Amino acid sequence: MNNNNNREPSSLGIVGFGAFGQLAARHLGKHFEITAYDPSQNVANVAQHLGVTLSSLHSVSQADVILIAAPVSSFENVVSEIADACNPGALIVDVGSVKVVPAEIMRRMLPNHVDIVATHPLFGPQSARQGIEGLKVAVCPVQGNRHAQVAAFLRKALGLTVIMTTPEDHDQEAAVVQGLTHLIAKVLLRMGPLPTRMTTKSFDLLSEAISMVQHDAPEVFEAIEKANPYAETVRRRFFDLAASLSVELEATSTTQPHNESGH
Amino acid sequence: MNNNNNREPSSLGIVGFGAFGQLAARHLGKHFEITAYDPSQNVANVAQHLGVTLSSLHSVSQADVILIAAPVSSFENVVSEIADACNPGALIVDVGSVKVVPAEIMRRMLPNHVDIVATHPLFGPQSARQGIEGLKVAVCPVQGNRHAQVAAFLRKALGLTVIMTTPEDHDQEAAVVQGLTHLIAKVLLRMGPLPTRMTTKSFDLLSEAISMVQHDAPEVFEAIEKANPYAETVRRRFFDLAASLSVELEATSTTQPHNESGH
Repeated sequence: MNNNNNREPSSLGIVGFGAFGQLAARHLGKHFEITAYDPSQNVANVAQHLGVTLSSLHSVSQADVILIAAPVSSFENVVSEIADACNPGALIVDVGSVKVVPAEIMRRMLPNHVDIVATHPLFGPQSARQGIEGLKVAVCPVQGNRHAQVAAFLRKALGLTVIMTTPEDHDQEAAVVQGLTHLIAKVLLRMGPLPTRMTTKSFDLLSEAISMVQHDAPEVFEAIEKANPYAETVRRRFFDLAASLSVELEATSTTQPHNESGH
Repeated sequence: MNNNNNREPSSLGIVGFGAFGQLAARHLGKHFEITAYDPSQNVANVAQHLGVTLSSLHSVSQADVILIAAPVSSFENVVSEIADACNPGALIVDVGSVKVVPAEIMRRMLPNHVDIVATHPLFGPQSARQGIEGLKVAVCPVQGNRHAQVAAFLRKALGLTVIMTTPEDHDQEAAVVQGLTHLIAKVLLRMGPLPTRMTTKSFDLLSEAISMVQHDAPEVFEAIEKANPYAETVRRRFFDLAASLSVELEATSTTQPHNESGH
């Protein structure tokens, strides 16, 4: 991370070379010497294309900066293996969509001699298609003081809008932001193909919002709805309000059409 | 309506000078001599500003073209008064957000010597802020053959995208398009102020969609949800799918955070 820091980390180890790990490599390639670990055999081509050396989890964990972009299911196992292999002074960063649980896992399992910063880039391959400049990333200090360095890098080197926060504050807001978006998308997708002909501007916006999340892996939805300690409350609130609105609507008497409801 | 038609209608009577009646006057002023009727006393200034002469419902109903932009509650009464006052050969057009019920009312109550075209401009003052060019309007022939003339005018004179359809097809699609948009907006508005800080692109789109409909009059929501014969089915489907998703989510076991869920 070539900025104000006497130590000059030059090697980056990406743990989990899926959709987001690859997106990270694409944007960090000119700042780091990148190695990556992924259990899948299907990432060899894309790794080569991105100039990334695939290696074992152990050797990837010896990099100066370790980026954990591992899937839901293996997060805890991955962290424990990194804990055994990482070097003193290493900087360990995760990019999960929830922060309370992973921050707790990293703080508990990783050694005291490493710095830990929990982050959540508020974008994915879909929303990063036009580049990542100006997109948002949440940054939570977990251990050590290099969160300031990480924030400066994300801001200056990548042009991201950095939101410094805590895992708790992040998850509370994400429970609404991501929880509701994915919940509504899920319900609408189950309703089948949506109309495209007689659509209003507001419906077009709704459809676009859905199309951005509908291709996320099932684990994404699971993570957002289940691994966020605040998601269930928000979800129940949404379902309860929907249910009471449903009752109201069946109760009230039918009225005639109105003249101003185009948008 | 100054286009291919041996008869040259030059007077337009707008019945109901609310938000949409005023929007219509703003865009039709250079094509017609406009008079308008509204029971409210508060429209005098805007009428003067738009060069529209306010008059009685009876005299407004004697125009060559009568545009019904009356609120839900008074639609049927208004049509019966127009039926008594309108001239033979008049063209009567409504702009309600549902079409089956108003088309039936107009066909039943208006005389045979007038042409009737039911329309639904798929926009309102909000979405028309940047002008109406390219916006959509649904057009349903009801009585007579001047729907083609109306469609041509909307396309050529106003630059609108015209969708020729039937009241039934319109209401079926609108039940999803407007029914769902307003339903979701209603539920989210009841959840209180939405986050604006740690937002994703898809959530921003969702918020924008909501903001476009949240200022609609309560009658608009009522009309869309209650006066559309297909709305209840769509609504029940949405609520049922939401409920079953809710059950599934409480049932499944908690998982760990995932790495790619930013958008």
